[in-house]
Amino acid sequence: MHELHAAYATEQLRPPDVIDAVLSRIATRGADSVWISRWPDHKLRQRAADLDRIAQDRGIAGMPLFGVPCGVKDNIDVAGLPTTAACPAYRYWPDRNAGCVQRLIDAGAIVVGKTNMDQFATGLTGTRSPYGIARSVFGGGLIAGGSSSGSAVAVAAGMVCFALATDTAGSGRVPAAMNGVVGCKPTRGLVSTTGVVPACRSLDCVSIVTTTVADAETVLSMIGGPDDRDPWSRVAAISGDGVDGSHSPSPVRLAVPTGLDFEGDGAMRDAFDAAVTQAAQHTADLVPTTIAPLLEAGELLYQGPWVAERLAELETFFAQHPGDVLPITRQVIEGGRRFTAVDTFRAWHRLKDLQHWTERLWRRAELLIMPTVPTTFTVEEIAAEPVRRNTVLGRFTQFVNLLDLAAMTLPAGQTADGRPASITLIGPAFSEPLLLSVATRLAPTVGGRP
Amino acid sequence: MHELHAAYATEQLRPPDVIDAVLSRIATRGADSVWISRWPDHKLRQRAADLDRIAQDRGIAGMPLFGVPCGVKDNIDVAGLPTTAACPAYRYWPDRNAGCVQRLIDAGAIVVGKTNMDQFATGLTGTRSPYGIARSVFGGGLIAGGSSSGSAVAVAAGMVCFALATDTAGSGRVPAAMNGVVGCKPTRGLVSTTGVVPACRSLDCVSIVTTTVADAETVLSMIGGPDDRDPWSRVAAISGDGVDGSHSPSPVRLAVPTGLDFEGDGAMRDAFDAAVTQAAQHTADLVPTTIAPLLEAGELLYQGPWVAERLAELETFFAQHPGDVLPITRQVIEGGRRFTAVDTFRAWHRLKDLQHWTERLWRRAELLIMPTVPTTFTVEEIAAEPVRRNTVLGRFTQFVNLLDLAAMTLPAGQTADGRPASITLIGPAFSEPLLLSVATRLAPTVGGRP
Repeated sequence: MHELHAAYATEQLRPPDVIDAVLSRIATRGADSVWISRWPDHKLRQRAADLDRIAQDRGIAGMPLFGVPCGVKDNIDVAGLPTTAACPAYRYWPDRNAGCVQRLIDAGAIVVGKTNMDQFATGLTGTRSPYGIARSVFGGGLIAGGSSSGSAVAVAAGMVCFALATDTAGSGRVPAAMNGVVGCKPTRGLVSTTGVVPACRSLDCVSIVTTTVADAETVLSMIGGPDDRDPWSRVAAISGDGVDGSHSPSPVRLAVPTGLDFEGDGAMRDAFDAAVTQAAQHTADLVPTTIAPLLEAGELLYQGPWVAERLAELETFFAQHPGDVLPITRQVIEGGRRFTAVDTFRAWHRLKDLQHWTERLWRRAELLIMPTVPTTFTVEEIAAEPVRRNTVLGRFTQFVNLLDLAAMTLPAGQTADGRPASITLIGPAFSEPLLLSVATRLAPTVGGRP
Repeated sequence: MHELHAAYATEQLRPPDVIDAVLSRIATRGADSVWISRWPDHKLRQRAADLDRIAQDRGIAGMPLFGVPCGVKDNIDVAGLPTTAACPAYRYWPDRNAGCVQRLIDAGAIVVGKTNMDQFATGLTGTRSPYGIARSVFGGGLIAGGSSSGSAVAVAAGMVCFALATDTAGSGRVPAAMNGVVGCKPTRGLVSTTGVVPACRSLDCVSIVTTTVADAETVLSMIGGPDDRDPWSRVAAISGDGVDGSHSPSPVRLAVPTGLDFEGDGAMRDAFDAAVTQAAQHTADLVPTTIAPLLEAGELLYQGPWVAERLAELETFFAQHPGDVLPITRQVIEGGRRFTAVDTFRAWHRLKDLQHWTERLWRRAELLIMPTVPTTFTVEEIAAEPVRRNTVLGRFTQFVNLLDLAAMTLPAGQTADGRPASITLIGPAFSEPLLLSVATRLAPTVGGRP
């Protein structure tokens, strides 16, 4: 993205050239189920021509995303394209852009289209969509991961420079891991969710998929910040215990979980151990820690009352559209019916205890390093055990938003048998400056593109 | 309290003299249902003698509450006295003091005993206790208000200099209003709730009853601050939108609600209007505002899912003690059973919208001035309509903790027919410095003791 910007600045490239390349790459991939809708080619060429004229008139200064093609997950509104959340019956045509999309467009980005996803962002496999199954760029029949499957593949396959995703249980991080790209899951409320279809409204985050940490930082700087229209928008708090992102301690103390369950995937365990060893050699002191409290918190999301938060959004739609929702999606979300208000408050109280434990973790270490997923699955493996294996995929990601944390997913090379390996750095709320700084230092050492 | 401290400092008074006076006053009042338990006289005299010896040995410097007698509501642990929460079958003997009590004792205070309350802090009348009904010091058969009835009467009747209370729906403010004393309801999490019997754990606050604003400030400075043992403990956040307590604008912009429903109590309305007029003349610019969103938020507490938070604490105890809970207390709390997890998340989302509205109120005004209660009731009136009239009493107080606000209740003289009038100043979370500063300026003008 930075090379692209430099090429625009020196007029070695112009937006129409880039859009031609994007369209060519999309055409080459053919029916890959990455897109739910796209702007017609002539509209994209028009946007490129408009940007080109602006560049001729007044240059590209002040437009950090000038002419950068991007994808937007189909649960985020782009005015003029339908929003479906991967449910055709749910489709509507928004008349304004989501807050984050508007900021991208203002910064010069070119939205190419809306990307495929697990229906209603409920799922971590990328297989729960009536618009087909986008598969991992690593091949071998591997799932792309979800729910932001299309966003991750669009970036990993080089169709766009970056994509917006969303992430409640890991929907931005799991597909990044399955496709060897970077996933930035900012603190809840740092990026406005105005114009985003709610999953769990109190937990939903807009996230970013890129190929480099620097690109994630650039996009985050464009879309982050308070939104007066969004009740869930938050401003970074500074307190005695707060995070001061302006300094990045070196070496960083990285908490490393003990006793991780990789579902017997020794190659994935080896890849993670290698990434940790690299991190220790280059930039970090390691602090071994249990993560039992984190895993317990994560289980509240689908095995606990938070699944009812999804139902709170969709109950009316489900009732009105008995045949229009994927059976697995309906089954998972209607599971929320079994919880009472008493269950919910008990779970909330328990979560508070677990948050309290987590706050004290940050006294022992600045960040936590985790494998992003315990193992990988093929499309066929998911079809055989669609619920249990989905749960496995979320094991290391689903606690993050419940515990009010921020996360950066980085590629970590490949397993010995050629599958994508990935780590996620996790820090307290509003620790993005530190996360980005450490991710920049670690990315080259763990096999990602610097 | 400050005069007392000065008298101690110059040895005009010594703790045994003060304890004699306290015991004499308690004896004079007789069976007033203010106390659930008290230290035996000889234990109080022992504590006074111990303090006296300390004073002789090394003076009273560093003990801002040296020799100050106080009461503690019976849902707050005092080691050596039973905690009952006004339910004899619930009684237990704590082996350590609540965090806030320990800080009082360390500062030299003398805990006299545990004060009466509505059972499980569920009620605003002071009549829901098997330990009898403490009545307002204003006489006329008026209720003392609740749930912290004993704490308010103990202070108003001059038995102690201050008392700890708790306040979830208004339990610290309503009885202060009914007895012409000051009630300080700090921001959630500012005072540790370690060692406090939970009502709604996510909303419960320890509050303070005093006769002057200065006394409230002194006690708050002793008991406020982070507690590492308490997951609900919070540190003041400073942000762009935050409150800077270090300056107190003059004149202060006071939001004044329009269209208040005083239940036809014209005398109470007149008293409130007079208090507002006085405030405007002396210290404040008035900003008329609707408070419909605040009232809507308040209704979530008992008419919405939050009542299930009480049941989450007590469900097991209720099942094991079918005959040991007051029927009205059981009826109210078991009302929590009717709400589902979906209801709870919907209510939470709505609350978020109402919090969003409230945040914008603070751009138009620094604080909100409210009557504390719409009207007063006698014990007989409450007996006739125990649930509806309880709800009326909470109308102007019960939104405060749900919306994460801080509040200071001040006496505002009397109604034309001799009942207590009261105002409450309300500000955003962690606005205590501003609240205390404005309350100090307003108290003399609205009929309270300066």
